[in-house]
Amino acid sequence: MTYSRQMILAHPGSLDIDTDALSRCIDDCLRCAQACTACADACVAEVTVADLRRCIYLCLNCADICDVTARIVSRTAEFDRVLARATLEACATSCNVCGAECEHHAKMGMVHCEVCEEACRTCEESCRALIALV
Amino acid sequence: MTYSRQMILAHPGSLDIDTDALSRCIDDCLRCAQACTACADACVAEVTVADLRRCIYLCLNCADICDVTARIVSRTAEFDRVLARATLEACATSCNVCGAECEHHAKMGMVHCEVCEEACRTCEESCRALIALV
Amino acid sequence: MTYSRQMILAHPGSLDIDTDALSRCIDDCLRCAQACTACADACVAEVTVADLRRCIYLCLNCADICDVTARIVSRTAEFDRVLARATLEACATSCNVCGAECEHHAKMGMVHCEVCEEACRTCEESCRALIALV
Amino acid sequence: MTYSRQMILAHPGSLDIDTDALSRCIDDCLRCAQACTACADACVAEVTVADLRRCIYLCLNCADICDVTARIVSRTAEFDRVLARATLEACATSCNVCGAECEHHAKMGMVHCEVCEEACRTCEESCRALIALV
Repeated sequence: MTYSRQMILAHPGSLDIDTDALSRCIDDCLRCAQACTACADACVAEVTVADLRRCIYLCLNCADICDVTARIVSRTAEFDRVLARATLEACATSCNVCGAECEHHAKMGMVHCEVCEEACRTCEESCRALIALV
Repeated sequence: MTYSRQMILAHPGSLDIDTDALSRCIDDCLRCAQACTACADACVAEVTVADLRRCIYLCLNCADICDVTARIVSRTAEFDRVLARATLEACATSCNVCGAECEHHAKMGMVHCEVCEEACRTCEESCRALIALV
Repeated sequence: MTYSRQMILAHPGSLDIDTDALSRCIDDCLRCAQACTACADACVAEVTVADLRRCIYLCLNCADICDVTARIVSRTAEFDRVLARATLEACATSCNVCGAECEHHAKMGMVHCEVCEEACRTCEESCRALIALV
Repeated sequence: MTYSRQMILAHPGSLDIDTDALSRCIDDCLRCAQACTACADACVAEVTVADLRRCIYLCLNCADICDVTARIVSRTAEFDRVLARATLEACATSCNVCGAECEHHAKMGMVHCEVCEEACRTCEESCRALIALV
C-alpha cells in the first residue's frame, strides 16, 4: 500500500471520494511531475535540443502543474471541490498537450519522451477519473 | 522596473501580450503566494487556530497555485494559451475563495488575514486581466 | 521499474552515480513530500491541533524541501555536485527533525504521524546514501 | 511596505530576527526565482541554445531552491534555525554558481542573463545576511 493511500485512511476527516481514485491520482501526478522534470533535462542534453524547445517548455509547465495538483488533492480536510476541479482540469489539459508532444518525439526514437508520454497519458486519465468524482 | 518586466523585454521571442498586464500578473502571483504562505503560518500560531482551519487550508492551496501560475506565465517562449488560461482560471478561483475567507477573519481583527485578503484580491484581478488577453 | 529509473537509463548524458541510489532517492523524496503535505493537513483537522503546531510547521517545510530535492537530483545533464550535496543535506536535516517530531505524536496514537515518520526516516536514509556518492 | 514585511509584523509569534533582513531575503528569493525561471525559458529560445545548457540547468535548479527558501523563511511561527540555515546555505550556493554562469553569458550580450545575474547576486547577499542572524 502506498503512503498516499495510507495517509487518506489515517486522516481524521471523512471525505466521500473513492480512496482508490484519489490515491491513484496523487501518485500519478507525482510520477508525471518527476518524468516531466527529467524529460526536460534530457531534452536539453540532446544534440537535437533546438528541435525539442516546445517539448522542454511543455514538460517544465507540466511538472509544475502535476506537482501542485498532487498537493491540492492531498489536502482533504476542507476539500473545496470547485478549486480541486479547476486544478485537475488544468492538470489534465497540461498532460494531454505534453503527452501529445512527447509522443511525436517518441516516434522519432527519443526513449525519455516515450516514458514521459506514458506518464502523461496515465496522469491525464487519473485526473479525469477524479474530476468525475469531485 | 521589476525584474519580471526586464525579463519580458529581454526575451528573444516575441509574444503579443501586453507587457504591463503580464509582468503585473507575475508579480502579484508571487506576492500573493508569499502572503498566503505567511498567513497560513500565522493562523497556525493563533490561539484560535481551531477556528482558522479552513483559512489555513485555502491559504496553503492558494500559495501553491499562485506559485505555479507565476512560473507558467513567466515562460513565454512557446506560450500555450489554452494551458495558460486553465492555470490562470484555477488561480483566480483560488484567490477569490481564499480572499473571501480571509476577509471574514480580517473583520474579526486578524491583521495577517487583512493583508492576505488584499494580496488575494489584487492577484485575482491581475489574473482575470491577463485571461482577457491570452 | 519506476519511471524515475527508466528516465535515468534513457538520459542521453552519462552520470557516474549509482542508478539504484539515485532513483531510490528521487522516489523517496516524492513519497515523503506527499506524506508530509497530507500529515500537515491531517494535523490541522485534529481536535488536538493546538498541540500539533510544530508538527504542521515541520511537515510543511519538509514537503517543500523534499519536493525541490527530487527535482534537483532528477536533473542529471549538468549535475553540479556541490549544489546537489547542499540540497541533499538540507533535505536529510529536514527529514530527521520532522521524523523525530512525528515519532513523538505517533507514540500518542496519531496514525498519520506514524506513516509520515516512516516516510521521513526512509527519505533521510536515501538522501544520506546519495550524499555519500555525489 | 511590501506584503512580506507586513506579514512579519502581523504575525502573532515573536521572532527575534531583524525584520528588514528577513523581509529582504524573502523578497529577493522570490524575485530571483522568477528571474531564473524566465532566464531558463529565454535561454531555450535562443539560437545558441546548445551553448546555454549549463545556464538552463543552473537556472531551473536556482528557481526551485529560491522558491522553497522564500517559503521556509516565511514560516516563522516555529522557526527552526538549523533547518533555515541549511536551506539558506543551499540557496546562497545555488545563487553563487548560477550568478557566475549568467555573468559569463551576460558578457557575451545576453541581456536576460545580465538581469538574472543581478537577481542572483542580490539574493545570495540577502541569504548570507540572514544566515548571519539565524
